[in-house]
Amino acid sequence: MTQRADGRTPDQLRPVTIERGWSSQAEGSALISFGGTKVLCTASFTNGVPRWLTGKGKGWVTAEYAMLPRATNERNQRESVKGKIGGRTHEISRLIGRALRAVVDTKALGENTIVIDCDVLQADGGTRTAAITGAYVALADAIEWGRAKKFIGQKSQVLLDSVSAISVGIVDGVPLLDLPYVEDSRAETDMNIVVTGRGLFVEVQGTAEGAPFDKRELDQLLELGLAGTAELRRHQLAALGQAE
Amino acid sequence: MTQRADGRTPDQLRPVTIERGWSSQAEGSALISFGGTKVLCTASFTNGVPRWLTGKGKGWVTAEYAMLPRATNERNQRESVKGKIGGRTHEISRLIGRALRAVVDTKALGENTIVIDCDVLQADGGTRTAAITGAYVALADAIEWGRAKKFIGQKSQVLLDSVSAISVGIVDGVPLLDLPYVEDSRAETDMNIVVTGRGLFVEVQGTAEGAPFDKRELDQLLELGLAGTAELRRHQLAALGQAE
Amino acid sequence: MTQRADGRTPDQLRPVTIERGWSSQAEGSALISFGGTKVLCTASFTNGVPRWLTGKGKGWVTAEYAMLPRATNERNQRESVKGKIGGRTHEISRLIGRALRAVVDTKALGENTIVIDCDVLQADGGTRTAAITGAYVALADAIEWGRAKKFIGQKSQVLLDSVSAISVGIVDGVPLLDLPYVEDSRAETDMNIVVTGRGLFVEVQGTAEGAPFDKRELDQLLELGLAGTAELRRHQLAALGQAE
Amino acid sequence: MTQRADGRTPDQLRPVTIERGWSSQAEGSALISFGGTKVLCTASFTNGVPRWLTGKGKGWVTAEYAMLPRATNERNQRESVKGKIGGRTHEISRLIGRALRAVVDTKALGENTIVIDCDVLQADGGTRTAAITGAYVALADAIEWGRAKKFIGQKSQVLLDSVSAISVGIVDGVPLLDLPYVEDSRAETDMNIVVTGRGLFVEVQGTAEGAPFDKRELDQLLELGLAGTAELRRHQLAALGQAE
Amino acid sequence: MTQRADGRTPDQLRPVTIERGWSSQAEGSALISFGGTKVLCTASFTNGVPRWLTGKGKGWVTAEYAMLPRATNERNQRESVKGKIGGRTHEISRLIGRALRAVVDTKALGENTIVIDCDVLQADGGTRTAAITGAYVALADAIEWGRAKKFIGQKSQVLLDSVSAISVGIVDGVPLLDLPYVEDSRAETDMNIVVTGRGLFVEVQGTAEGAPFDKRELDQLLELGLAGTAELRRHQLAALGQAE
Amino acid sequence: MTQRADGRTPDQLRPVTIERGWSSQAEGSALISFGGTKVLCTASFTNGVPRWLTGKGKGWVTAEYAMLPRATNERNQRESVKGKIGGRTHEISRLIGRALRAVVDTKALGENTIVIDCDVLQADGGTRTAAITGAYVALADAIEWGRAKKFIGQKSQVLLDSVSAISVGIVDGVPLLDLPYVEDSRAETDMNIVVTGRGLFVEVQGTAEGAPFDKRELDQLLELGLAGTAELRRHQLAALGQAE
Repeated sequence: MTQRADGRTPDQLRPVTIERGWSSQAEGSALISFGGTKVLCTASFTNGVPRWLTGKGKGWVTAEYAMLPRATNERNQRESVKGKIGGRTHEISRLIGRALRAVVDTKALGENTIVIDCDVLQADGGTRTAAITGAYVALADAIEWGRAKKFIGQKSQVLLDSVSAISVGIVDGVPLLDLPYVEDSRAETDMNIVVTGRGLFVEVQGTAEGAPFDKRELDQLLELGLAGTAELRRHQLAALGQAE
Repeated sequence: MTQRADGRTPDQLRPVTIERGWSSQAEGSALISFGGTKVLCTASFTNGVPRWLTGKGKGWVTAEYAMLPRATNERNQRESVKGKIGGRTHEISRLIGRALRAVVDTKALGENTIVIDCDVLQADGGTRTAAITGAYVALADAIEWGRAKKFIGQKSQVLLDSVSAISVGIVDGVPLLDLPYVEDSRAETDMNIVVTGRGLFVEVQGTAEGAPFDKRELDQLLELGLAGTAELRRHQLAALGQAE
Repeated sequence: MTQRADGRTPDQLRPVTIERGWSSQAEGSALISFGGTKVLCTASFTNGVPRWLTGKGKGWVTAEYAMLPRATNERNQRESVKGKIGGRTHEISRLIGRALRAVVDTKALGENTIVIDCDVLQADGGTRTAAITGAYVALADAIEWGRAKKFIGQKSQVLLDSVSAISVGIVDGVPLLDLPYVEDSRAETDMNIVVTGRGLFVEVQGTAEGAPFDKRELDQLLELGLAGTAELRRHQLAALGQAE
Repeated sequence: MTQRADGRTPDQLRPVTIERGWSSQAEGSALISFGGTKVLCTASFTNGVPRWLTGKGKGWVTAEYAMLPRATNERNQRESVKGKIGGRTHEISRLIGRALRAVVDTKALGENTIVIDCDVLQADGGTRTAAITGAYVALADAIEWGRAKKFIGQKSQVLLDSVSAISVGIVDGVPLLDLPYVEDSRAETDMNIVVTGRGLFVEVQGTAEGAPFDKRELDQLLELGLAGTAELRRHQLAALGQAE
Repeated sequence: MTQRADGRTPDQLRPVTIERGWSSQAEGSALISFGGTKVLCTASFTNGVPRWLTGKGKGWVTAEYAMLPRATNERNQRESVKGKIGGRTHEISRLIGRALRAVVDTKALGENTIVIDCDVLQADGGTRTAAITGAYVALADAIEWGRAKKFIGQKSQVLLDSVSAISVGIVDGVPLLDLPYVEDSRAETDMNIVVTGRGLFVEVQGTAEGAPFDKRELDQLLELGLAGTAELRRHQLAALGQAE
Repeated sequence: MTQRADGRTPDQLRPVTIERGWSSQAEGSALISFGGTKVLCTASFTNGVPRWLTGKGKGWVTAEYAMLPRATNERNQRESVKGKIGGRTHEISRLIGRALRAVVDTKALGENTIVIDCDVLQADGGTRTAAITGAYVALADAIEWGRAKKFIGQKSQVLLDSVSAISVGIVDGVPLLDLPYVEDSRAETDMNIVVTGRGLFVEVQGTAEGAPFDKRELDQLLELGLAGTAELRRHQLAALGQAE
């Protein structure tokens, strides 16, 4: 069996920590780490919705992803200094938002807005998947905050399910779970999957970085990913103090 | 069997046309249509590479996607007027670039740059997949132009395979191929797949717009998509005057 | 007599085609060509006016001009990528808007807005004049659309006249009509004139690119231009299926 | 005869003053006024040319026009605050640059760059024409500065002619010279002409603001403008201390 | 005693001139000079306040500072061309706004807005202090304009005090008042102080450019500055035709 | 004696923590907290200097400050999304850079660049002073990293002194040290002082938010600040494991 550089087996996650309530300012927050990747997720709850949604009896959940300039091994110029947001940032922000909305009943949320900010403080591969996984915890707390403040009905079932995400990839022909930067940069195929607590897919994004892949490889990656997200779900439940 | 609004069967493409060499200015070009979706793809060949790639003996292929303001049913503000490119535009440009690079041997291309512009003149769903499919034709011609001009070696095998793309989705529980806008906007699950001529995956991007999907549904969609891209490959070969 | 590179006489237009209704999305549209110059003009009709004009009982007509990156012989960076619109683009957009407003009775239009988009798909000189000439056709159709939808009164005379435009210039001392790029780039004097169907001037923009010009030369150019725009008017009428 | 609001005859300029050398920082400068319109023109001389012109033995002259936010009767937002330059600003900057280059022999200038800044301190109509007229004086002094510093050959004839500009227009059917804001805003036709000291046209830009105009009206306006620019030329010569 | 390059004693201001009412467009204006530094200050009065302040019975005073591109010895690119405002510009605009608001009773001003524009026409050190000193004069006139128009109550005491500003610094160990560029660029410590007519501090901004400074040096600088601002106050009173 | 809301005496700092080496990516880093204010400071060391400094044998130290969108009680829009950096951000970035450069011998640093990023993860007043204080620790470690890598000479004395900063202000007439948000927002006078380890001033920035202040009050504030920065210096030494 392949020995990975950090000693993990191919189907093993890096150590996961979720520091719930890290921020004393936000209505929900979590500092999540997948090994060396650390993402601060905050959820901002506002009563009311953007103008285009007013009067429809539905809420809105959106997300913004960003990376501190020295989260990575070499410093990147700030997007605020460049004056524009890069394609990768946009793409990941949109992905996180879609992932969260997939488990939210916006009618039950009522005319409230929740903005999730995922700021990568340190990056070592898998930042978007850590962001989604931590964002769910922040979101859950923000919803409870809204309920406590009576912006959300006491019995409204806003969350339909939980959601988490993980990266999988093929390196030297071997399917691996949760790739750190050193593996990710060498992967022939790279895939991010977003899965609900019930094990249904929300997003499957596979890209051939090196060689195109076939159906059998795709199936192996999906299987690895489903196992990984099931384990992440247990971390989320533990952080939220919920029973399985 | 479900009757689709335009009378197609679930596994049927819309009428496909590829007008090769539409532009007399570009080194390669194609005006492609998938039903009411029309995309002008041009390939600009430049001898030389961006500075960051100089001296590595490798070429560069990149793409830019955009939509005319009135390609859609309601006019959208121009991104040049807004002063910035939206997330969706960035995301699709990046997807097209990755799809094309997956079938290009950049060493064989040599220190040459090919920029593919995909401008949507009219939009009715599936613009990114039409763009990839047409871009391949423009790319192939630009490579031959470069060969004729001796910027590329006479025997260099620059293209490793062909590449095309199609959308698939689940509407009212039924997996469908090549969704026009009216179906796409109602789809529970929406997927774009990019496949090489040999039938290998380059990209698989599936998103649950409505309900999350399970492995069986994913498999059905992939099967539909593989058949669709195989047919698109035949259109590409015909446009390029190549035998299968 | 000077033989022009394309065989035309000095007072001859290039072949003109107007494909009315090219777009199935816009309320009015025309794909116009002056030789190798091809411009897609779409007219977007909206009931209502910008806030600054509300309640004055008047409509608004405006235009935006742009060029696809590979419309020209060498690829230009997209203005959306640069993040700003160049001076030339602004200048031509403003010119087209003024030209159209000169033949529109905004009171008769009522509180409706028409935005004309002129996108140059291929450029070989005279793009702004082709744009104005095609935009008139798109505008006329959008007005009729508005009338059919009862946004405009049945008897309102919105169009006071037709309008078209042509370039003229002095090359090697000879006044020429409708300059393609190869002539335009060598012209000593370059002029664009915009003329109504009745033969009155809306715009006269003459620039000495090489040597300053005198009154006699100016008069020769104006005469050529008046004859050219009269012929363009006949093309517009034919496209619109109107009698002279 | 029409009495103008400020008591002038139709063919009379407003009081013109040219304060040469107003700036102690620039290589050439002039504060010019046409009645209530005041424009500060500075010329910045740099040895060397932009990269795209290097090694061609030619110089470069360009211009930038701008207006202070409270130059006009109501305050306008700064373009630096908006983050982009408006169409009108771009258009006028380009016009000034073309006007000046029309009288410069860039070979005789040698590989030197002159940037003319025309900042409108107070606006009352005709700002672009005042700018061109003042810019010529600043340019002439910057050229002499470059000659004194030996960046330009002692005998090089850099200026081929002088250049000035004036507005003309038709108000209530009467052709008028040098329109202040109150006339300009009511003009049926508005024209700016740029003329060399020898009386040749560099630019003719006529626009029908109200009703389209015919050839006879155009001729009347051109005649007025030629007389006006001839008088401006005398002001320029006086400011520069040159004999006619 | 140190002889300064321009012959002044260490505690002497450069010649100060205040040309009140320079602009015929603005509600208040002053062209102020401190030696070679010339700043045009205009005050724009608008009845009403920004949305965020509506209905609070209070007015708003704000300022914008900018420099013409050739105000300095070498030309700087326009911030409108760069598409963004530099840090220094922002910082000075904010300083001027704070300085003016410190002497304004916004309740007495009522729901009116005054925007002060300070445009540096020529720069030779101390531009921000000249701007504040001139801005006060423009502000005072704009307030009287508002009173005359009945937007401000006849007896409202809007101005609580006057305000002026001056730079001080340590050059070669000697504390100096009102530094021109040649001294400013060599100063070990540079300080700007903003003082009311009654001699109270509004802002103290001291920066060690070379060596850090101690309390004794700080005290010497403050003393110089208080004497300088007292003298500027007399210039302001004279310009406004007020008794001391 | 005034009882402060958090129970501190007027001359008492909030609890200070400095987590040195928080980031495993940067050459130097510190997560600093002043009570509820938490700032992540990273120092990025690059061999070489910006082009404008090349060949002068000197290094460059600069800083960028930013705040996460939900660092504060209400979410702020990201500056990257707005497309421009606000005045406050610019001003603080410049302040931090000047503060650090005041204690660096750029000749001893050699042709190396250090960029300090100060990202506020949570804000409760005094973010700029915490940033400067933490940045010094990150800077010190980055310099030692550069020395270990031989980019800096073994005996080069790059740091001339330490530097820290604190806020002081007058609230209800009482001078207070280290203001949290609740005090800062009510302060009549607000001052930030930057002081070296030897007790010399680098920056003194005092602003009258409410009433202007006199010399006696200024002296009281400076005295408080000197005591506070002396204590911060001890925290820095402890974090760096240095003896006093």
